[in-house]
Parts: sequence; structure tokens; C-alpha cells
Amino acid sequence: MASGNTSTAAPARFDTETGEPESGQIEAVLSTPTLGQVLIAVEELWPASLAEEWDTVGPVVGRPEREVKRIMFAVDPTLEVVADAVSRGTDLLITHHPLLLRPVNSVAATGFKGEAVHLLIESGCALVTAHTNADSAIGGVSDVLADIFGLTQTQPLAPSKDGLPEEGIGRVGMLPEPLQLHEFASRVFSAMPSVAGGVRVAGDRAGIVRKVAVCGGAGDSLFDAVRAAEADVYVTADLRHHPASEAREAALNGKPYLIDVSHFASEWLWLPTAADALKNVLHDLGHDVEVGVSAINTDPWDFILTP
Amino acid sequence: MASGNTSTAAPARFDTETGEPESGQIEAVLSTPTLGQVLIAVEELWPASLAEEWDTVGPVVGRPEREVKRIMFAVDPTLEVVADAVSRGTDLLITHHPLLLRPVNSVAATGFKGEAVHLLIESGCALVTAHTNADSAIGGVSDVLADIFGLTQTQPLAPSKDGLPEEGIGRVGMLPEPLQLHEFASRVFSAMPSVAGGVRVAGDRAGIVRKVAVCGGAGDSLFDAVRAAEADVYVTADLRHHPASEAREAALNGKPYLIDVSHFASEWLWLPTAADALKNVLHDLGHDVEVGVSAINTDPWDFILTP
Amino acid sequence: MASGNTSTAAPARFDTETGEPESGQIEAVLSTPTLGQVLIAVEELWPASLAEEWDTVGPVVGRPEREVKRIMFAVDPTLEVVADAVSRGTDLLITHHPLLLRPVNSVAATGFKGEAVHLLIESGCALVTAHTNADSAIGGVSDVLADIFGLTQTQPLAPSKDGLPEEGIGRVGMLPEPLQLHEFASRVFSAMPSVAGGVRVAGDRAGIVRKVAVCGGAGDSLFDAVRAAEADVYVTADLRHHPASEAREAALNGKPYLIDVSHFASEWLWLPTAADALKNVLHDLGHDVEVGVSAINTDPWDFILTP
Amino acid sequence: MASGNTSTAAPARFDTETGEPESGQIEAVLSTPTLGQVLIAVEELWPASLAEEWDTVGPVVGRPEREVKRIMFAVDPTLEVVADAVSRGTDLLITHHPLLLRPVNSVAATGFKGEAVHLLIESGCALVTAHTNADSAIGGVSDVLADIFGLTQTQPLAPSKDGLPEEGIGRVGMLPEPLQLHEFASRVFSAMPSVAGGVRVAGDRAGIVRKVAVCGGAGDSLFDAVRAAEADVYVTADLRHHPASEAREAALNGKPYLIDVSHFASEWLWLPTAADALKNVLHDLGHDVEVGVSAINTDPWDFILTP
Amino acid sequence: MASGNTSTAAPARFDTETGEPESGQIEAVLSTPTLGQVLIAVEELWPASLAEEWDTVGPVVGRPEREVKRIMFAVDPTLEVVADAVSRGTDLLITHHPLLLRPVNSVAATGFKGEAVHLLIESGCALVTAHTNADSAIGGVSDVLADIFGLTQTQPLAPSKDGLPEEGIGRVGMLPEPLQLHEFASRVFSAMPSVAGGVRVAGDRAGIVRKVAVCGGAGDSLFDAVRAAEADVYVTADLRHHPASEAREAALNGKPYLIDVSHFASEWLWLPTAADALKNVLHDLGHDVEVGVSAINTDPWDFILTP
Amino acid sequence: MASGNTSTAAPARFDTETGEPESGQIEAVLSTPTLGQVLIAVEELWPASLAEEWDTVGPVVGRPEREVKRIMFAVDPTLEVVADAVSRGTDLLITHHPLLLRPVNSVAATGFKGEAVHLLIESGCALVTAHTNADSAIGGVSDVLADIFGLTQTQPLAPSKDGLPEEGIGRVGMLPEPLQLHEFASRVFSAMPSVAGGVRVAGDRAGIVRKVAVCGGAGDSLFDAVRAAEADVYVTADLRHHPASEAREAALNGKPYLIDVSHFASEWLWLPTAADALKNVLHDLGHDVEVGVSAINTDPWDFILTP
Repeated sequence: MASGNTSTAAPARFDTETGEPESGQIEAVLSTPTLGQVLIAVEELWPASLAEEWDTVGPVVGRPEREVKRIMFAVDPTLEVVADAVSRGTDLLITHHPLLLRPVNSVAATGFKGEAVHLLIESGCALVTAHTNADSAIGGVSDVLADIFGLTQTQPLAPSKDGLPEEGIGRVGMLPEPLQLHEFASRVFSAMPSVAGGVRVAGDRAGIVRKVAVCGGAGDSLFDAVRAAEADVYVTADLRHHPASEAREAALNGKPYLIDVSHFASEWLWLPTAADALKNVLHDLGHDVEVGVSAINTDPWDFILTP
Repeated sequence: MASGNTSTAAPARFDTETGEPESGQIEAVLSTPTLGQVLIAVEELWPASLAEEWDTVGPVVGRPEREVKRIMFAVDPTLEVVADAVSRGTDLLITHHPLLLRPVNSVAATGFKGEAVHLLIESGCALVTAHTNADSAIGGVSDVLADIFGLTQTQPLAPSKDGLPEEGIGRVGMLPEPLQLHEFASRVFSAMPSVAGGVRVAGDRAGIVRKVAVCGGAGDSLFDAVRAAEADVYVTADLRHHPASEAREAALNGKPYLIDVSHFASEWLWLPTAADALKNVLHDLGHDVEVGVSAINTDPWDFILTP
Repeated sequence: MASGNTSTAAPARFDTETGEPESGQIEAVLSTPTLGQVLIAVEELWPASLAEEWDTVGPVVGRPEREVKRIMFAVDPTLEVVADAVSRGTDLLITHHPLLLRPVNSVAATGFKGEAVHLLIESGCALVTAHTNADSAIGGVSDVLADIFGLTQTQPLAPSKDGLPEEGIGRVGMLPEPLQLHEFASRVFSAMPSVAGGVRVAGDRAGIVRKVAVCGGAGDSLFDAVRAAEADVYVTADLRHHPASEAREAALNGKPYLIDVSHFASEWLWLPTAADALKNVLHDLGHDVEVGVSAINTDPWDFILTP
Repeated sequence: MASGNTSTAAPARFDTETGEPESGQIEAVLSTPTLGQVLIAVEELWPASLAEEWDTVGPVVGRPEREVKRIMFAVDPTLEVVADAVSRGTDLLITHHPLLLRPVNSVAATGFKGEAVHLLIESGCALVTAHTNADSAIGGVSDVLADIFGLTQTQPLAPSKDGLPEEGIGRVGMLPEPLQLHEFASRVFSAMPSVAGGVRVAGDRAGIVRKVAVCGGAGDSLFDAVRAAEADVYVTADLRHHPASEAREAALNGKPYLIDVSHFASEWLWLPTAADALKNVLHDLGHDVEVGVSAINTDPWDFILTP
Repeated sequence: MASGNTSTAAPARFDTETGEPESGQIEAVLSTPTLGQVLIAVEELWPASLAEEWDTVGPVVGRPEREVKRIMFAVDPTLEVVADAVSRGTDLLITHHPLLLRPVNSVAATGFKGEAVHLLIESGCALVTAHTNADSAIGGVSDVLADIFGLTQTQPLAPSKDGLPEEGIGRVGMLPEPLQLHEFASRVFSAMPSVAGGVRVAGDRAGIVRKVAVCGGAGDSLFDAVRAAEADVYVTADLRHHPASEAREAALNGKPYLIDVSHFASEWLWLPTAADALKNVLHDLGHDVEVGVSAINTDPWDFILTP
Repeated sequence: MASGNTSTAAPARFDTETGEPESGQIEAVLSTPTLGQVLIAVEELWPASLAEEWDTVGPVVGRPEREVKRIMFAVDPTLEVVADAVSRGTDLLITHHPLLLRPVNSVAATGFKGEAVHLLIESGCALVTAHTNADSAIGGVSDVLADIFGLTQTQPLAPSKDGLPEEGIGRVGMLPEPLQLHEFASRVFSAMPSVAGGVRVAGDRAGIVRKVAVCGGAGDSLFDAVRAAEADVYVTADLRHHPASEAREAALNGKPYLIDVSHFASEWLWLPTAADALKNVLHDLGHDVEVGVSAINTDPWDFILTP
């Protein structure tokens, strides 16, 4: 829980257009969906079959027959996020990260995960996960990152086994024009929601980048694909010393450069797009729902000291 | 769910003395405990350290700080048992079988386990498991069976690794006087709550039994210990064709005979004793709680056809 | 070994038409086959390739070059079955269950398996197993059960990977007309050889069944297939408390109902059919052999006490 | 390879007293040791038995009989470090990180690891690893960190199984007087060699810290020990989103706070101490050697953008 | 089966004193033992607890209650050995190598192992294995080798975990006086029964050997122990190119030299001693039995071409 | 290291035509290749994709950009072979056996493998392995053996999964005319370089052989394929007692006979062919290199004593 920064530190860009329901939007013919009906729309956007084998996606808490009037998107199902959602009358919280990725034998409120389960069920708020299926899908986390960085001719870094050619983890694409590394890093920094930890860069400031690989969240398992794609720079998160060092040692002519961003920030960028997309799909299915994005910053870091 | 037999088929012996709180029992100085305080008493009676390695015992649902006025014991956390408990204002359901023995990534109410979790949390009813720790403990499932069959000089079949010499799975002991197999089988039948499947016996009706091995629940992993103990008869549950056949083939002079009882029935016998014991320990700790036993028969079988 | 019931308890239906060689049947041109020649016929009827990966089928004891004049079928190679077969001058015992499913480093007669091997070899009687290959084959255990219950439009519950579409473990099919559960259960009971343990049923006596799933022997690994087939009732054997309870909890509208029969009885039904089939195939190959069915009941249970 | 920052970015504090041999230090009676003799001193300071089971420490390249006149310490055996060491006439490079932690079937110079092996052997420079043995030893990486932060009453976080009570991974100890979190973070920042990535902090700036846990390098496997020690703050490196987030969610009253430093920087601090210690032990053994510390910054990051 | 060499190639030394029962040896008071009684003597000499974990020793075929008048020892239970034993009226064949080391699901006579089982049971001849227990025991295979080579001060190469200090696989000891390698090799050659493959030697003919390590049968897993014992030469069997080459590469000053003998021959040496020992123990237990050694050479090789 | 036999025992046939560069062979237009260029020719002859999964082939030591003027082939990278190669100015040693089949964490010269790595790198000599890829390739080890024995209509014993039909481990083919076993064994003996251990034969001297299976090196894993091919005789190396005995027991009519040759000798035969082939391919690629074969005998045995 990032202490003390909920009300004050959350930057303006956490408030998205979808965050507040617009009055006058609800048409008479539209109905309130059940959780089961919302899950159909979720499956259409982010099919469970796109999830990695080790992953678990879909509903975690909730009754399928219950009505859903308000949906909120967030990166992490932290207690702060859940409490905030519940306090705003949310019926369904959709998070990128699973609450119960490691399976559990108990949901007693003797730990924070059981506490979250109790809080959600007591408040009648469902919880649904869209994780690596949302990373991989068209219009998913990786596509959003590629769009924001202005990439064209994008392709997946690790194409999905059973999906379409456009689906898969990570994206690689071309910048419209060459940039120096420091220029591109500034573009990345500006595109992200502001978090304490900043954006770290490895490489020659003046080096030229044209081909860009991106992977939202922790992408250190994709270095082989990045090199095979001959990307000039790789933007991802959670790069530790050894993978980063080995990647730099293995770099030919110093490339690919590395840009290490906040795991949270890289995935947060997807939330407004996801909220819009879900609202639209539900509308097409004849449903009207408020869909917003949580204003809570769940990046774990609160401040940084730099040279 | 054994259809239709809750109200009519549940025999009188399902109602125990502890099932209904006796008026006048509550003294002014006694307080209502929290779930956390009840768990201390549970640990004292059935220490978690006695559970098998593969097992999961302890709290499954509930808030430790919440008050517990009514406790109900049951063998299985079926939806029928949970609904009945909730309808009676139960604050804590203690079952022998774990709800989440296979760990889960979701407790959504899209399956019966998630449905049970939702029903419990929505109703503010906690769930606690006392499984192989209760099998193994002094005064546990095996000890109760041995007592009901009148055994003396009892010892564990499979002594607990870290526990006292009296602790462990199963018991072996002596009948006060020799009985013919059919006489002993009748005693077993009479001691059990009535279930549809009856009591099956392998061996010579007129064979003499004096030394008896018992194991509540499924005991087919203990045949080596039963033979080593030179028991005349082994009472357990869930004996399938191959283990039973091989045990009969390996039997010397036809012994040990086998008596296969209802898994549910063999463990149900422990519930009244457990309820009394917990009430007493809580009383000693200064707490007053109503403690009862569920009247629901969770044996899966509804009727039988026999030759 | 079911004590004392060999001579008296074995019901009339254990004696089948194939059990006694009919006089006048042997034509002059027919020859006595060797074990090797019988194995060719066995492979034609129950191909080894249909056996499950964990299973071991085919010859267990015997010399391929030895003549086979008398064949006996049985469910289990117990010592009682072997001794009876040997005493009747049997040259080949074909059993459904393998004697050496768990492989052995010794066949010394210090245990009942080594004792059986010695008895067989000393008497010149071969032993052959037809297990999951016979479950899966057309006209095998599952098909015989489906026929006896009057099912039509049958399909395998778990189709064989490498076999024909009609081959596989279990069958699902339609009753000619709907029956109440208790009526269908009576039909099952009547069709089976009489054993001590009877037939247990879970479900509403008056519930309607039309679509029936069957699996001879222990079928608790096929619940997912049974539910996917939307069967009204599932007939199988060796259902323990936890699989049966979970299946009942997961049942929609209480279906599939469950009927738990004797493992032995469910597989015994196949023996007369198998004996006829083998006799016919051998006849077509130019061989004349006596083929019978063992009259020994190897269900492990001797008597039952019911409410 | 951190591009371009070797000559300019390496801060003054990379030059240690031991980095330059002092003239007049060599006494006539002292001899030049062989690599084998140096390894005896290395074992005395950082016994191989203290290394974790998965680790590999000791000599990686070199001939035991060869004389060692110049020793250089470094964190990582990168090509830049190796080339710099070789260019300075180094006979032995001692690094904290193993070159061949994942074992290899080839040392051909077709990759950077084989390139390093060739460069070392061609130049006659040996390579020795002191990794988790140096983390765990008295006066090792963790002890140096604890000293620099001013901790007293230190104990290992994860005591060594076979070592002394003072040996083990990580340390926990007390500050002489309570500090606010931001004050302590500044102390940590000032103590470290300057690297691009800075020092990230999670927790309340004004929160009070007195009990401090430290672990040089990646310490995310020690959270249970940190909580058991009731530390107010945990200083370590390479904390990714999920371990950090879960640790923050599990934090009671927000503690332990987290301080995430550079993996390289946290381990670099040990080098001057190690160089002094080795020089002294060799001196006591009658040997005279130049011992220095590499001035190369092998932190992979070159610059950072922060809010 | 070594073709054609049974009658002619078997050298005189295959006929041992114990091979022919001596007349007048049987006293009136001595009884004929059962197999079960012989097994007690076998256990006394070569306790099953000394066998390696992967090994299987003890009775393989036979009825414990059957009388044993003639016992024959052999290295391998080949069909030729079994047929010869049976033709001589042998009641018990004791072999060093197990017939069923890899466990079997069938003993049908469709392979040579099933053929052997049939031949033995049909002839009423039991089969017992004394393998690594006989290697390890005092007076076992290794001790006999050490004695024949004239070693003194012998100790096990790999001491038994649970046995006495003198028990274990292999032996190391001292020659009474130093020999040149070619002299010692000649002694080894002369001590062995003659087989086609001869004795291969690696090392300097004129090198001096004093300390000798021996291991009957395949000993390539004991090289570390041989080096630790600082043996000058290692005598064992079945040395392939890679273990032998690596041992030669790792040899210091060319030692240990290697002497590769016939696996069969190295273990055959134990048979006469074993036969005497068993006869004596049985005599002490009040039994009289003829005990002999098979004259069949089961070394697989029939002739050799050498430079 | 076969002591003392390098200079005297190495037979004339170790000197091959390719062993000495012929004068006048170098044309002006041919260039000296780099190691990287030689590796292209190696891959063309013995593609890495033909190697077994557990194997490691290709470059082990060396810089790809370095010039290669002299290449030497050998079976084993022993220290004696390496030292000899280096003393002759060899730039590239190509061996059949890998130096680092078991991967290593260290190449320090504290063992013979590290010593070899140091010696090679210090001398600027590269090391490349062509192992199971060279066994399997057309014109590889098995093909050379088949050619030398005069086989026709050859096919692989174990065809390569991904290769051509002619590729795979071992070969089976027909002799031009039938031979008695002792005649064929003499042919094998004469074809091999002379080593101390000779050639061992199992089978009837006068037995007729026509169909021959061969596998260079240790071939005891291919017995099933040899039997399936109905070969009359199998020539391979490193046959230990148990595989050889079981193969002889399983032999029908005594066939396949076995001929056990020196592992080294069977693979040495390939070296001259390989040297010629590589020289030719390099020539076709425009390169001129001296290519020879090591004269060192690396068979581990020095002398033998036979009956």
C-alpha cells in the first residue's frame, strides 16, 4: 500500500473520461446486465484461451446471476483498491493481476487475500481477472503501449500458439522517424502515469532508435525474441541486475538498449482503453453500465533519491 | 446432495444432547468469544501439527475478530449443511472434511465450492476444518470409534510422527470378550447412524474376533499395519474391490475379516464428542457458546437394493 | 476369498450355456489349438492396443506351444479361482483383472501371487489377461452392460485414442422409454449376478431417467465425461464418499443420479459373452476348444446389514 | 555494458585506498604467492562451505601454480571489467558474481562468456568467484552493509545451516537512535556508490525506523525472515512489482518499509573491505601482493528520468 | 549362451571340492531342510539388509515348505545353467545375479526369463539371489577376491551404511611385497577361471604396485573411492571407454593403474567359498544338504583375436 | 593416458595420407579460412541437427575470427592428444568425443579438462566436436565401418528423426557372400587399428553370417533394432556382461552373434575419411588447409593377458 498518496499524489491523468459516468448516456431500451452477461463481453474482448498456461483468468469472486451497474478497472486487487471500489458502490472490479494466482486452501480473513475476498463478498462486489489474455489480445496491454509510443507495422514478440497472427505477448514495431535514445526515453516517460520510481535507461543517450520492442509488465523472458527481432530498444518492467546485465553483455553494437518502466504504469495505460471497449461491447449487447478506472496508484514505491 | 431425506430420513440419533443449547447454562461471568478465541480451543483439542502433510486444516472462511455465539459441527461442508447452519443462525461451522482440500484460484459462485464460500461470508458464518488432526488426536475420530465398540488397551495403528504415543491414525484394541463375526458386525451396525448403504462384511460369520482394528473414513492405506497388529477384524470405510480382494487373498486363516461401513457414519460418531469437548474447553477459557451437531445426513446414498 | 459361499451362494446365473461343453459340437476337421493360436484369437477380439497406458494385458503364465483344450473365464485370478480351474483340467484361464499389474521381482510362493504362479505352472495351466482392452473393445465389458440395460444409440464415454469411434471406456446411450430411477435401479439389480453388497442408489426415487451412462468396474475418473454427456444416471462401481459426494454436489437438478454396483458383478456380466465370442473366433480359425465361465464369486463381501 | 560512462561517470569513491599499491609496502622477506596459495587465503576468509547449494564458488579460470602479483576485485566479470583488469596487468580477478553459474558445454568465443574465458587465459589472468560464501561470512557483504548503516546487535536474517551463529545471508540490527524513514533513506543513498537508478523507497516519509534488515543483492526470498524479525525497514535490491506489492499488502501498520537499492552498488561496498582483508591474510601468510578494486561501474543503467 | 563350450571349454578349476557330495558325510541325526530353513542360513551369511537399495535379493521361485536336498551355486541364471541344474536333480539354485532385477508383469514362457521360471517351477527347483548383499558381506565376493590376491589390512571401498565396518562394496588392501604391474596382472590372470576375453591392463608394465583396490563385477562407480584410498591399481570388470579414459586422464603419476577382468570370472571365484559356507551353516543348524557349484561358464564371450 | 606407447606402439596405419600435407597442393587462388569459415564446412558435412538430444557438438574452444592453417582430427581430446596437436602447430583440433559433455562451472586448470582448455587457448588452438552428428551423417562413422566391412544395401539401424532416410545411428547391410563367423571376425580384426584389447566374439565359430549390423562406439542401446533387422552378427564396442548376456539369452538359434571391438578403434576408422572430406569441402569453398589425423592411440588399455 503506497502510504498517503491516494488523495494527493494521484495525478490528473489517473482520471479518465470513462472514470465518471456521463449523465444522459443511458437509453431506455438498455438493460442492466448480470455478472454472467458481463463475462460474455469480457470473453469476447479478452478470450481466456489467450492466457498463458500458468495463468488463471476469469471470475474470482461473485454470483453470476447478480446485476452489475458499476464496473471499475484497476491493475492490482489491493485492499486499498477494493475498499475504494466498494465505497463507490462498485458491483464488479476487473483487475489485470489475479488475486489468487497461487491457489489457496483458505480464504479466511487472516491474511490480506482472504480479507479482500471477505470485503468483496460482504459488499456484493464481484472480482474478475483479465491478465495474460489481456496482454495478448488485439487492443490489449501490448497494443496500447505500441499505440502510445506511435509504433507502426506492429507484430507480436511471442505470437500466441492458438490465436490470430496479431495476438501474442509483447509487440515490436517501427517509429515513424528515427529518434535518439534520450528523445525516445522522454516520450516513454511522458506517456506513463507518474510514479515515484521513474524510468531507467541503459544505452548511449545519442544512439538512434527506430525499431522498438515493448512488453507491459515483467518482460525479462522475452530477450531472445527481442534480439531475433533486431529491435533497437526494448521497453519493459521489473528488469533485475542479472537479466539486464546479461542482455547488455550480449548486446551487439550496444543494442537493444533497455528502458525499464514501472510495472504498474506500463499496465495502467491499458485501463482506459479497456474500460471504453467493455462499455461499447456491453452497449452493443443491449446493456448499460457505468465503467470507470480506479484512481488508486498501486505502484509500491513512494519516493526516490537520485544522483 | 442426498435428495429428500433431510427432514424424514434423518434418524433420531442425529439429535444429540449438545444439539440444543440447554437453558440456564449460561453464567453471567462467561463471555462470548471471537473466532480467534475459539481457534485457540480448537488447537488445544486437535493440534494442527497432528494433520497429515497433504492435509489442510484450520480456518477456511471467517473474520478472526468476529463474535461466535453458535457453533455447529458436521462431517461435510455440503451446500445443504451450510444452508441449514446459516438458517439456524450459526456463527461457526466446524466440519471434518475440508472444503478446499484441492486449492483454488477462484471462489466465484460458479461452482458449489464458491457457492458455499459466498453463502458463508454473506451470512457471517465462519468455517473451520478439523480433519486428520482430529482423526489422530486423543479423543478424536478413531478413539471415539474404539470406545463405541468397547475396545480396551487401544493403540494407534499408524502412530503420529511428532505426537504422543497415543496419537495417530486408526486404533487397535481388544474386545472385553470374544464375539462371533456376525455378532460384532451387528454391534458395529447398531452403533452407527443409519445410512442407506448399510454395513458390508467379508469373512466367516461364525469366525471369532477378539482383536479389532478401526479407522474412521477411508482406511485402505493401513492394511500393512492391520496385519502387523494381527487384528482379527478391520472396520473402516470406502473399501474398493481391489484393496479388499487383495486383503482377503493375503489373509492368513481368513483374518483379518473386513467390515466396510459408511465413511460419513464412521466419522459422524465423533461429532457429539467433539461438540462436548469444545464446549468444555471454551467454558474453561471463560467463554459461553451454544454448540450443536448438524442433523443433515451427508452420506451420498439414498437407497439400496439387496438380495 | 469370500468364505464358504463357493458351493452354496453361487447363484444359478453363474452357470452359463458356455460353461459346459456341448456334446456333438466337435467336428472331425477341427484341431486343438496351442496357446499361441488362442492368443491370436484373443488379440482379434480385444486388441492389446486398446489397453490403457498403465495397464498390462496378454499372457502372464504359460508356454505358447502347449495345447489348449479347456478355457475358463473369470473376473479375478484369486487362489480359489485358480484352484477350481486347475481341478477341472483347465488349460487356460482368462481373467479380466491382471495378476501382476504391479510388476514383481519374485514369484516365490511366499505370497498369494507367487502361490498362484506356482499352482498354474505346476498344473500346466496358462493365464491370460484381457483388462482395459476388453473394457474398450466393441462387444466388451461396457458394450455388454449397455446391451443388458437395453441402451440404444450408444457411444463411448471416453473414446479410445487410437481405436475406432465405437471403442473406448464406458458407454452412454438411451433407454427405449423413460423410467423412474427406482424402476431403472431394479432393472440394474436384476441384471447383475447376486452379490452380498447389493446396489446403492443416490437420487430421487421418482426422478425420470432416459439417458444412461455406464462403466464396468471403478468409474470415478469419468465424471466429467458423464456430465458432458448430460446423462440422467451413471452406473458404475467402487464409488467412495468423496467422489460420490462431490458428484452429488455438482449435480444440476440432482442429475446425474448415481448407481453403485459391485465391481465384480459389473464385469462378470461380460464373461459369458466373451466365452461365446472366443469360442466362435477359434471355431472360425479351425479350432475346437471347450470354453466355460468360472462359477466362483470373487466379490470380496460375504454378507450385509442394512436398515 | 553501461556505455560511455567508464571514464566520466565513475565517481571518486570507486577509487579506494587499496586500489593503488602503496610504495614502500613490500618487505624483503615477503614472497609472491601462487594462485593456489591465494586460494588458501580466500578459503580462510570466505569458506566455500558457506555458499548456497545452488551456487558455484572458487576458481573459474587459471593455473594454480602460476604466480599472482596483482589482484583486482569487482562485482561482475563483464567484458569491460575483464579487459580493464588485463590492461592493468592483473594476475587474478576476484568477482562476486560467477561467470559460469549456469554450467556450459563450450567456452568458444562465440558468446560473451567464452570471450571472457579466452581473454583471461590468453592474458594469464585467473578468475575466482566469492559469491554467497562472501554474502554469508563474517565481514562479508551483509556485515559490511550493516556496518556502513551503523547497525548494532546484528544477527543473520537467514542463519547458515552449517556455519557459526554469526554467519548467514542478510543481517538485522538496531540503529543507534531512531530516524525518520526519509532520514534513513538519505543515509543509505549517501553510503552507496552513485549509480543511475537511485534509491527507491516504499513507506511513510515520516515513519520511525529503529530496527533495520539488510540483504546485499536480490533479497526478495527473505521477506518471511524480515517480518519474523519485526524489522522497521528492509534494504535490499532487485525488488519487482509483485514481491514488493505483496510485502506492502502484508505489512502491519505499514512496516517493514522497503528501500530498493542498486544490486551492484549494494555489493560493491564490500569490495574495499574484501581487498583489505585478503591483503592482510596474505601478508600474514608471508606473501606480498598488490590488491585493488575495479573502477568500472557494472550497474546496467546509464540514466534515469524521474517526476 | 556361450556356444559349444560347456563340455570342452570349462576348465578343471570349475570343478570344486564342494561340487560333488562326499560319501559318508551324512550323519544319522541330520535332517533335510525345507527351502524356508535354507533361507534362514542364507540370511545369516548374506543379510538382505546389506543389499543396495536398487537391488532385489532373496527367493525368486520356489515353495518355502518344499525339501531341499541338492543346492547348486552359479553366477547367472541363464537357461543353460537352469537346464543343467534341473538335469542334476537340483532343488535350489542360488545365483549371484537376479533373474528379475527389472520387475515383470508376466512370466509367460514367451521370453527367456519366463522360460526359466517355467523350467524351474515345472522341475520343482527353487531360485534364490544373493547379489549385492553377497558383494558386501564378510567373506563375500570382494573379500574372496582380496584373499585370492593376497591382500592384507583390507577395508571396504564403499562401507555399508547400516552394516559393520568390515562390510561394504569393494575392498582395498596391501600386497605383502611390492610387485611390478605386469607381475601383479599375471597373478590376477592366474587366479581367475579361464575365459575367452582375458585380462586387460592400463598402465606402465614396470610400475610398482603395493596398494590394491578390488571390486567384483562392474566397479566403474567407485573411482572416487579408489582415488581417495590412493590405491596403486584397481581390479574390476566391465570398464567401458569413457570411464576408463577419464580415470586414466585423472590419474596422478599414472596411478591407479587399471585391470579389467571378466565380470563373470571375478564373481565366480566366490562360488566355492559360498558353497562351503552355506554347507557349514546348514550343518550347524542340523541339516545335511549336497552343495555344489555349476560347471557352466556364463561369460558371454567365446573367443578373442589379439595383436 | 596409455603409458609409453605413443612413439613405439602406434602402428603404421595411424599415419594416413591426409596426415602429411602434400607439397604443391596449394593453389595461389586459395585462401586461409577462419575458424568461422571452417565451421560452415563442418556443418555441411555433419549437421548439428543430426546430433542426439543429450549430446553437445560444435565449437568448444576458439575464436571464430582466427585463421586456421592446420587441422588435426582425433577420437579423444586427451591431454596427450592436445599437447601433441599444439606441438605440431595445429590451429584446430576436431575430436569425436566432446570435452565438456557434462557441463562445467569452471575451467580452472585444477583438473584435466580445465588443463586442456588452458593449453588450447594459450596455444591459440581451437577445439570442435563432431560426435553423434558424425555417427549419423552420410559418410559418417557408421557408414565408414559398413564400407570397410564390405557391406551393401546398407540402412540405418536407428533412423534419424529429422534427417534423410540414409541418416541415423548404426548401419545394417549384407556381405557380398556368406562367411563363417571366425572369418568375418578376422576381417573385422584386420580392418581395425591395432589396440591392446583385441576383438572379442560370442557365437559359434563356424556359424554363417550374411547380414551384418554395425555401430561405432558403445551400441548396447540398439539391441532391439539389431534383432528387428534380423542381423546375423552385431559389431559394436563397450559391451558389458549384462547387456551381452541378455542379448545372448534372447538370441534365436544363437543369432545375432556379437563382436565387441575397441570403442576407440571403431571410431578411429572414420578419421581419415573425415579429414579427406573436410579438406575437399574447404577446397570447394576456396580454402586451403592442411588436414591430418592424430597418431596418438587413446584406447585406454596397454596390454592384455589371454588364455
